Amino acid sequence: MSVAQLNSRPNLMTRIEKAIDRSLSKAVSLESPSKLAAAIMYATKPGGARVRPTILLSVALACGDDKPPITDAAAAALELMHCASLVHDDLPCFDDASMRRGKAAVHIEFSEPLAVLTGDSLIMLAFETLAHSSSTDPVRSAKLVLALAQMSGMPNGICAGQGWESEEDIDLAAYHRSKTGSLFIAASQMGAIASGHDPEPWFELGNRIGEAFQVADDLRDALMDSSTTGKPSGQDARKGRPNAVAELGEVGATKRLKDILGSAKECIPPCPGQAMIAKVMAAEASRFVPHYSKLMDTLPD
Amino acid sequence: MSVAQLNSRPNLMTRIEKAIDRSLSKAVSLESPSKLAAAIMYATKPGGARVRPTILLSVALACGDDKPPITDAAAAALELMHCASLVHDDLPCFDDASMRRGKAAVHIEFSEPLAVLTGDSLIMLAFETLAHSSSTDPVRSAKLVLALAQMSGMPNGICAGQGWESEEDIDLAAYHRSKTGSLFIAASQMGAIASGHDPEPWFELGNRIGEAFQVADDLRDALMDSSTTGKPSGQDARKGRPNAVAELGEVGATKRLKDILGSAKECIPPCPGQAMIAKVMAAEASRFVPHYSKLMDTLPD
Repeated sequence: MSVAQLNSRPNLMTRIEKAIDRSLSKAVSLESPSKLAAAIMYATKPGGARVRPTILLSVALACGDDKPPITDAAAAALELMHCASLVHDDLPCFDDASMRRGKAAVHIEFSEPLAVLTGDSLIMLAFETLAHSSSTDPVRSAKLVLALAQMSGMPNGICAGQGWESEEDIDLAAYHRSKTGSLFIAASQMGAIASGHDPEPWFELGNRIGEAFQVADDLRDALMDSSTTGKPSGQDARKGRPNAVAELGEVGATKRLKDILGSAKECIPPCPGQAMIAKVMAAEASRFVPHYSKLMDTLPD
Repeated sequence: MSVAQLNSRPNLMTRIEKAIDRSLSKAVSLESPSKLAAAIMYATKPGGARVRPTILLSVALACGDDKPPITDAAAAALELMHCASLVHDDLPCFDDASMRRGKAAVHIEFSEPLAVLTGDSLIMLAFETLAHSSSTDPVRSAKLVLALAQMSGMPNGICAGQGWESEEDIDLAAYHRSKTGSLFIAASQMGAIASGHDPEPWFELGNRIGEAFQVADDLRDALMDSSTTGKPSGQDARKGRPNAVAELGEVGATKRLKDILGSAKECIPPCPGQAMIAKVMAAEASRFVPHYSKLMDTLPD
């Protein structure tokens, strides 16, 4: 298969789902307490767009993907961590969201204790998955554990991002970078690490994709109804949370999205798959906002 | 210093606290959202008896402790994971406990969102701590990540243990082994791994210590008031949870504790520090139940 074929979305999705299934089979077995096992499956399958592992795999392929089992483990671990964060975010004490991915949130479908445990279990499974990959390459495995832990925890990961919501004085840049950006930074850096590359030059690409995603998500929240997004709409305005649409208006926010995506392209480090990554990014961006092309056409260049 | 000196409780405690402080300094900084940072410190310092890392260090010392930085990382990671589990266990949707270690529980002192995030952040920090230790030994680091993840997650770790509480038909042995036993199994196995030994022969020792701790905890819950234990008493009876005192009575439960500790001694794998470990175990057991010696004296041999 050519790199372009390997990198087609259906092929990436197949690879991602298989990797996630292999991980899940380690946590969910006949020995498991059955409700928690069911909640873990419910929170991960079927998934959303799997945007983060898609970016991770694209970067890994662009860097050579010389040890596919470790790339697969990285992609699965990242998506499991993302699913964990969604389950905890939806809890009554945070977003109190009743819907996610077009179905009842985990704490509604199961219970609040099972939702807390589902998130916790998925975090453990993410790290267990990376630890198993040490049989392929212990040094890359450890670097992946470090990157995922740092981009998920304190002071710069998703936990920190959620933590900023409890502060009176929010550092807005730190808030967005850690809450939404961190797992995109993890996606690009873990893709590089899985292929034996230095993660540092890949930071800025992940950072820009995260910024783009944040603006796109603000647009979705403000403009679309919940039947399209699969989760409650208008949450930002209702909770008075900072967002790009409130700040810049619809047209301003759309222009912002276009600018960030343009600048992100410039951040792709030199590598054999540079052009391919730019293409994947554009395709993923169009998935963020369903009317993306139409929105972009309304803007002057 | 002699092995006996290295292994004295004050020396072990100093070593454990220093290791935990080094870990915490990675999560808590001037960049952190301040309330979450404060909650993380509150949940970890001052600690309880640090029983699990004490066992871990004792096993590591008995096995040679040839790479102390990795032993320190393992001890800190294990205690951080234990603290995380306490914070989540105390949440209103689980034990709804207002007190822990003689002060208000994290969700009372801070808030419920900050308690969820404190637990999550401590889990990430545990794995981050182990990942950093890969600079000392990447293979041991990966094995430690695997052991900690498995003993914390599903289907055999503390998450599974809590998960059993949501089932109609509880597998009682699996419930106790995973809820309480798993982090004691992790303690003895991670101590062996940190010193480059095979963890497998150390499973049963951790398992027995876990069983002893469970019976001791049931005795504490039934017999002592909250000013002694630092947490609400009589929780098991109030919630109709399975426990050794309800099942066997006070005398029966105390006899059970004595029997388990006797059998645990037999499980210590041959190693230079075998006698020393037996001594530490007896000392730690007497910490589980303050009137331990008196209780033991009342029993026929």
